[in-house]
Amino acid sequence: MGGIPAVINDIPDIVIGRLPLYLRALSYMAKEAGKVTTSSHELGQRLGISSAQIRKDLSHFGEFGKQGTGYHINYLIEKLREILQLQEEWPVVLVGAGFLGHALAHYQGFEHRGFHISFVFDNDPEKIGIDMNGLVVRDISELSDVIKEKGVQIAIISVPATAAQEIADLLVGAGVHSILSYAPINLKAPKGVHVLYSDPVVQLQRMTYYQGSE
Amino acid sequence: MGGIPAVINDIPDIVIGRLPLYLRALSYMAKEAGKVTTSSHELGQRLGISSAQIRKDLSHFGEFGKQGTGYHINYLIEKLREILQLQEEWPVVLVGAGFLGHALAHYQGFEHRGFHISFVFDNDPEKIGIDMNGLVVRDISELSDVIKEKGVQIAIISVPATAAQEIADLLVGAGVHSILSYAPINLKAPKGVHVLYSDPVVQLQRMTYYQGSE
Repeated sequence: MGGIPAVINDIPDIVIGRLPLYLRALSYMAKEAGKVTTSSHELGQRLGISSAQIRKDLSHFGEFGKQGTGYHINYLIEKLREILQLQEEWPVVLVGAGFLGHALAHYQGFEHRGFHISFVFDNDPEKIGIDMNGLVVRDISELSDVIKEKGVQIAIISVPATAAQEIADLLVGAGVHSILSYAPINLKAPKGVHVLYSDPVVQLQRMTYYQGSE
Repeated sequence: MGGIPAVINDIPDIVIGRLPLYLRALSYMAKEAGKVTTSSHELGQRLGISSAQIRKDLSHFGEFGKQGTGYHINYLIEKLREILQLQEEWPVVLVGAGFLGHALAHYQGFEHRGFHISFVFDNDPEKIGIDMNGLVVRDISELSDVIKEKGVQIAIISVPATAAQEIADLLVGAGVHSILSYAPINLKAPKGVHVLYSDPVVQLQRMTYYQGSE
């Protein structure tokens, strides 16, 4: 399935998975709420995570806060960006120029967060050549060459379920290491390739557990 | 922010968050791989979660497997659906009929997984009245009445960031308890309302941590 191993470098993947949430909440605090410092308690309240968990997660990477004064938000943001290797923008290949591809090409959440959709591909002659938010949709036949030439390592798959495995194979063959897939099927990928899934149902199911409980 | 509290009924939310992943992997095993039984080890390998974690998570809810023979997949699927309250389909309101709204209206991953998009709303006169995969886009002015009349409790927000908070307020005011938002901003919601976010960047950031490490 090409998931992410549960533990690498002695740090559980579940911990790594929370760091982007901390980063997003901290960025919100700094930019929109104008805060300079915060505490694990405040951060935890925003995220529904215990303050003890946050302190434990961060302790894997060093000493970021002080008893009493808490965390300096911009410093912690900088450190988290280092840990997650986000100092420079990663070019991202998007495959699939349908409704979802359009939505992703127009998504404003990529800006200043470490990623930039650099290329879009599709196999539909009616889509090839069209402009999506400044990106020209390229022929899927050019995919491998572009990925190799530009050294792209990250891809987003927004094609129908029936085409997703074939696309994943193409991407991996060309050198992509990380895939975020929106197709509602499980992809096979070799060891060392990370595949994550964006699946609205997984999130909705998490919420129905609580329906009626409060 | 209206997140989900870290612990309810003594079961950490992080555990609840993994149940849909187990359910999806088990459904894949049963339907596509034709398996009848599995083990926490096999399930863990598919998901990048330790077998001990899986056993511990499931033990919160009862005794589902046997030493040596493992889990009967269909039985475990049934139990997880019960725990997550998925025995009947939940009607879902979708707000925003742009590219993403179209993609969601056509998403095939909802089927047989507990959800059905029943209504779509937008405020754009050019979108109101159009058909999206069999759903007619309704005027946002009808949103509150429809939600109240039909008792809808779950909504998906796929509007621009600038409109998301206003829509969230409307939804909550009409009785929605659970919101999945695709807008790249943090929403404020009262206690007891659950808000989860679909944010591709959070997933991409989790993967860049591992870039170059293998």
